[in-house]
Amino acid sequence: MDIGFIGLGHMGKAIAANLLRASHRLRVWNRSPDAARELATLGAKLVAEPAEAAQAEVLMTMLADDESTHGVLVSGGVLDGAARGLILANLATVSIALTRELAQLARQRGIAYVAAPVFGRPEVARAAKLNIVVAGEESAVARVQPLLTAIGERIWPVGSAPEHATVVKLAGNFMIASALETMGEAAALVQAHGVPPREFLKVLTTTLFAAPVYQNCGRLIAEQQYEPAAFKLVLGLKDVRLALQAGEAARVPMPFASVLRDQLLEAVAAGKAESDWAMLAEVAARHAGLKSAM
Amino acid sequence: MDIGFIGLGHMGKAIAANLLRASHRLRVWNRSPDAARELATLGAKLVAEPAEAAQAEVLMTMLADDESTHGVLVSGGVLDGAARGLILANLATVSIALTRELAQLARQRGIAYVAAPVFGRPEVARAAKLNIVVAGEESAVARVQPLLTAIGERIWPVGSAPEHATVVKLAGNFMIASALETMGEAAALVQAHGVPPREFLKVLTTTLFAAPVYQNCGRLIAEQQYEPAAFKLVLGLKDVRLALQAGEAARVPMPFASVLRDQLLEAVAAGKAESDWAMLAEVAARHAGLKSAM
Amino acid sequence: MDIGFIGLGHMGKAIAANLLRASHRLRVWNRSPDAARELATLGAKLVAEPAEAAQAEVLMTMLADDESTHGVLVSGGVLDGAARGLILANLATVSIALTRELAQLARQRGIAYVAAPVFGRPEVARAAKLNIVVAGEESAVARVQPLLTAIGERIWPVGSAPEHATVVKLAGNFMIASALETMGEAAALVQAHGVPPREFLKVLTTTLFAAPVYQNCGRLIAEQQYEPAAFKLVLGLKDVRLALQAGEAARVPMPFASVLRDQLLEAVAAGKAESDWAMLAEVAARHAGLKSAM
Amino acid sequence: MDIGFIGLGHMGKAIAANLLRASHRLRVWNRSPDAARELATLGAKLVAEPAEAAQAEVLMTMLADDESTHGVLVSGGVLDGAARGLILANLATVSIALTRELAQLARQRGIAYVAAPVFGRPEVARAAKLNIVVAGEESAVARVQPLLTAIGERIWPVGSAPEHATVVKLAGNFMIASALETMGEAAALVQAHGVPPREFLKVLTTTLFAAPVYQNCGRLIAEQQYEPAAFKLVLGLKDVRLALQAGEAARVPMPFASVLRDQLLEAVAAGKAESDWAMLAEVAARHAGLKSAM
Repeated sequence: MDIGFIGLGHMGKAIAANLLRASHRLRVWNRSPDAARELATLGAKLVAEPAEAAQAEVLMTMLADDESTHGVLVSGGVLDGAARGLILANLATVSIALTRELAQLARQRGIAYVAAPVFGRPEVARAAKLNIVVAGEESAVARVQPLLTAIGERIWPVGSAPEHATVVKLAGNFMIASALETMGEAAALVQAHGVPPREFLKVLTTTLFAAPVYQNCGRLIAEQQYEPAAFKLVLGLKDVRLALQAGEAARVPMPFASVLRDQLLEAVAAGKAESDWAMLAEVAARHAGLKSAM
Repeated sequence: MDIGFIGLGHMGKAIAANLLRASHRLRVWNRSPDAARELATLGAKLVAEPAEAAQAEVLMTMLADDESTHGVLVSGGVLDGAARGLILANLATVSIALTRELAQLARQRGIAYVAAPVFGRPEVARAAKLNIVVAGEESAVARVQPLLTAIGERIWPVGSAPEHATVVKLAGNFMIASALETMGEAAALVQAHGVPPREFLKVLTTTLFAAPVYQNCGRLIAEQQYEPAAFKLVLGLKDVRLALQAGEAARVPMPFASVLRDQLLEAVAAGKAESDWAMLAEVAARHAGLKSAM
Repeated sequence: MDIGFIGLGHMGKAIAANLLRASHRLRVWNRSPDAARELATLGAKLVAEPAEAAQAEVLMTMLADDESTHGVLVSGGVLDGAARGLILANLATVSIALTRELAQLARQRGIAYVAAPVFGRPEVARAAKLNIVVAGEESAVARVQPLLTAIGERIWPVGSAPEHATVVKLAGNFMIASALETMGEAAALVQAHGVPPREFLKVLTTTLFAAPVYQNCGRLIAEQQYEPAAFKLVLGLKDVRLALQAGEAARVPMPFASVLRDQLLEAVAAGKAESDWAMLAEVAARHAGLKSAM
Repeated sequence: MDIGFIGLGHMGKAIAANLLRASHRLRVWNRSPDAARELATLGAKLVAEPAEAAQAEVLMTMLADDESTHGVLVSGGVLDGAARGLILANLATVSIALTRELAQLARQRGIAYVAAPVFGRPEVARAAKLNIVVAGEESAVARVQPLLTAIGERIWPVGSAPEHATVVKLAGNFMIASALETMGEAAALVQAHGVPPREFLKVLTTTLFAAPVYQNCGRLIAEQQYEPAAFKLVLGLKDVRLALQAGEAARVPMPFASVLRDQLLEAVAAGKAESDWAMLAEVAARHAGLKSAM
C-alpha cells in the first residue's frame, strides 16, 4: 500500500521500518531530516514537505504531542492539501479535544480519521509487538487493519468514534503511571523498614503482579535505572495531564491522577524531565528521606 | 506434625483443611465453635481453650486483626501458657507494632515467632496455592517450611526479622488496593466518555496488566459483583491503615495510601463495609455522577 | 475620564455604576444588552459593538473567563481597532497565559495593558470596597489609579509585570477555596461527633479565624445557604484550574489545589455548578454519609 | 481554690503562673523538676508524686500527648488515688478515645472529668488570652469557670460530653494546619512567578485573611523563621493524626488532613520535627525546586 508517514522519533522510526519490511511503499517526513534519512536506507522515499506525505492511500502520524500534531496537520496545511478518500491514522497519544477536532476537520474534507494509539516502548515497536487500540469509521478501520497487523501484535477495535480509542489509551497510560507510583511508595515503605526493594518487587511481580508493566518498570525501579529513558517523564506528565483534562471534560474526579501530576511535576522541577518516568518512584523515596536517585 | 490452629474464618478453615490433608495432626480452636466442628469432621481435634491449641510443636494463628490476635495470644494467656520450644507461626496480616511485640514476648518465653502472612483469597487457600512471605529465626522457619509447602504454592523467605515479612505483606496489600482504585478511576473515565468499562478492562488486563490481581479484581469491577465478599472492604481499610501506620513509624509519606484510606472510609460510611473491597471502584463512579453500585 | 466598559455581569454592573457615580463618562457594551440598558438609566452610553467601547482613554473589561475575554478582545477585533495610547485595564481573573498574550498584543499596538483583578463579592463591589491587585507599566497604573480608587477600598500595586497581579489573584482565590474545603472537612468532623457545625464555626471564626473569608463563607456553610450564588461553583473550579495551570507552568506542585479540583468537579457532576462555591463544604459531608445539601 | 497542676511545659508553666497570680493555691508536679522549681519561686508548692497533686479541689493537667497523659493519670495511679469529688480538668489536646476513656474512669471513681483544651501559643498563654473550649458535666464546668477565666480570654462551652470539646479542638488545629499548607502552596506559586511571598502574604493577610492565624503564621513563613518553635512540627503531626483518627472513628474522610499528614511526615523525615510547624510551608517550596529552608 502507498503510505505516508510523519513523525520519526524512536517509536515512529521503529514502526515505519516494520511497514517497509511488510513491503509497503512509504513516503516519510520528519522535522529533523536525519531520522528520515535512516528510513531512506531501508527503502522509504523522503519528501520535503509534510503535505507530500499525504499523497498516499493512508497517512500515518506519530508526533510527540497535541501541539506538534496540530502544527503539522492543521496549521501546516496537510489536511487542507490532502485528497478526498485519504485515511488519516494517528498512532500518537493526543487529547480527546484534538481527536474530535481532527476527526471533524477530516470529515469536512472527505478524509477518514482513524485513532490508533499504541501501547509499547520502542523495543516493543521494533519487535512489531505493539498493542493497538483503534477506532474510526468501520470501512477505514478495515483498510488500515493490515498495516496495524504489520506493526502490532494485537489490535483492539473499540468502535467508530475515534475519541473512544483516545480515552482508552489515556486511561491505560494513567494505569501505568499509577503502577509506577504504587511501586515507588511500596518500595520506599519496605526499604525504610529494612527490606531491599529489589527483593520485595521480585516477590510481588512474579506472583500477584506478574504483568509486563510491573515486571519491566519494577526492574527499572529495583535497579534505579532511569537513563536512557524508554519513556520520558515529561511525556508521562503530558499524558497524565491529558487524562485529567479528559476527566474534567466528563466531570470525572481522579484523585490518583491528581497525585501523579503533583509527583511528576516535582520530578520535573528537580531536573528529571528527560529521565524515564519510572523515576516517579524516586519521588516517594525522597519524601521519606531515603537515598534517592532524584 | 502436631499442630495447633487458632482462627477458622474462611481463610483459616481452608488452610487447616489442607494441613489435615497433608496428614498433620491438628488441635483447633475458634471463637465460634461451628467452624471448628466442621474441621472435626475432617479429623481435627477440638479444644475448649486456645491455650490447649498451644500444646503442640507448632501453633498457627489466622485471626482477623491486631485486636483479636492480641486478645487471644496475650490477654488470653496462650503465650504465657505455652511450653518453651513452641514455634508460633502467625499467618494473618497484623501491624508492625504487634509483630514486634509478639516476637519479643515469644522470645522471653523461649518461643520462636515466625511471621508468615499469606497472599490469596479463600479459593486460593482451598487450592493450597497461597503465596506465603515468611520471616523469623532460621531454624524455626526451616521447621515450618513443610507446613507452608502444604498450604501454599510458593514460599518467600525474607530474612530473620519477623517484621520484614509483615512489611512486605502490608506493602503488597497496599499495592492491591492501589490497583483497585486505579481500575476504578480508569473505568469511570472511559465510561463517562462512552466506552464500557468491561471492554476497556479486557484490553488492559489481557495485555500490559495481565496479572492475577488485575484479572480477578477487574472481573469483579466489570461485572459490579461485590457480594459475597472474597475480601471485605472493612478489612481492606484496616490493611491500608496498617500500611499508613508502618509508613508513619518509618517516616514514609504515602499519598496513594492516603487517598485509598479516604475512599475506603467513604465506602464504609455508605454502608459497604461488608462488600468486597473491589467496591472501591464504585466510589470513583459515584464521584463522577455515574450510576454506581455504592 | 472617558471610559469604555465591557462585561456587565453582577460584578461588572456594580463596578460600572460606581464609576458613573464618580462622574466618569462611560461607554458600555455587554453581550446580552439588558444589563447594558440598566447602566444607561444611570447615564452610561450604550454602544453596539465592543470596538466602540475602546474609543476612550481607558477600556475596562470584566468578562467571565479566558474564552470570552479572548473572544471579545482578540477575535472580536477590539485590540486591532483600538487607538494607540489606550489603556486596557482587565479587572477579571484570567490565566497567566492570556495575561501574557494580551500584554504582548497590546504592546505591539501601542496600548498599555494593566492587570487589575479584584477581590470581593458583588455586594462588596456595590459598596466600592473591593481589594484590587494591580500591575502594569507605571505610568498606566498611575492613570487608572483614580478609577480604581472609585471602585475599591484598597489598591495593591505589585509591579510592572501584569502577570504578577494575575498570579497574586489566582493564589488568593486558591486560598479562599482552601478555606472552604477546610471548613467543610472540619464541619463534617465535628458534626459526625455530635457538635453542630454552626456552633463550631462560631468559635473558630470569632477567634483564630476572625477574617472576612471565614466569617462570610462560614455563615453560608453553617446555614447551608448556597443559592443564589454570590460566586458560582463552576467559576471557582475555573479559578482552581487556572491556579493549577499556573503551578504547572512554573513547576509548582499544589496538592491542596489538586484536592480542590477533584472535590469541585464532583459537585459539578452532582449538578451544583450554579450554586455558591461554599457548596464545596457539602462534598465533605456527603463523603461522610452525613445529610448533605449536595 | 486548691488546685493541683501536672505538666509544666511552655504552655503549662505560663498557665500555672496565671493561676498563682489569681491567688489560687497550687500544688505542682512535673516529670523534670526544673520547671516545677520555677513555679515554686512564684508560690507553688512542689509535690514529689503526681498523685499528691490530686489532693485538691481541681486537678489541671497539661501533658504533651495521649501517652504521657495516660501514663501519669492511669498507669501512674493518679486517678486511682484521687478522692471522690475531685474535678479533673484536662487542658491538653488528646484523642477522642482517651477523652472517653478518662471520662469513664473518672466517673467510676466519682471524679468529674472536664475537657478544656486551649487555643493559643505560649505568649498567648502568658498574657492569659487563651481561647478555651470546655465540655463536661454542668456543675463541674461551672466550678472551674473562674479558673478558666483566670487563664483565658474567652471560654467556649460546648455541652456536657467531654469529647465534644476534644473534637472542636482537633478540628480547630486541623484548620490551622490547613492554613499553613495553603499559605505554603500559594507562596510557592507566586514566588515561582516572581512575586515575593512576603508581598503576597501582606496583601492577603491584611484583607480577606486578616485573622490571627494567618497574620502570625504568615509572618513566620514570610520571614522563614522557624526556630525556636512556638509549636513544634512533630506535635502538629500528632494533632493531624488525632484528627484523622477522629475522622476514621466517625467515618469522615478528610482529604486535606491526609495531605497534611504526608507533608508533615516529609518534614519530619527531613529532620524538622523540632522546628515550628509553619515549616510546613517549606515542603511546598522544596517540591517546586525553590530555595527552601527545609
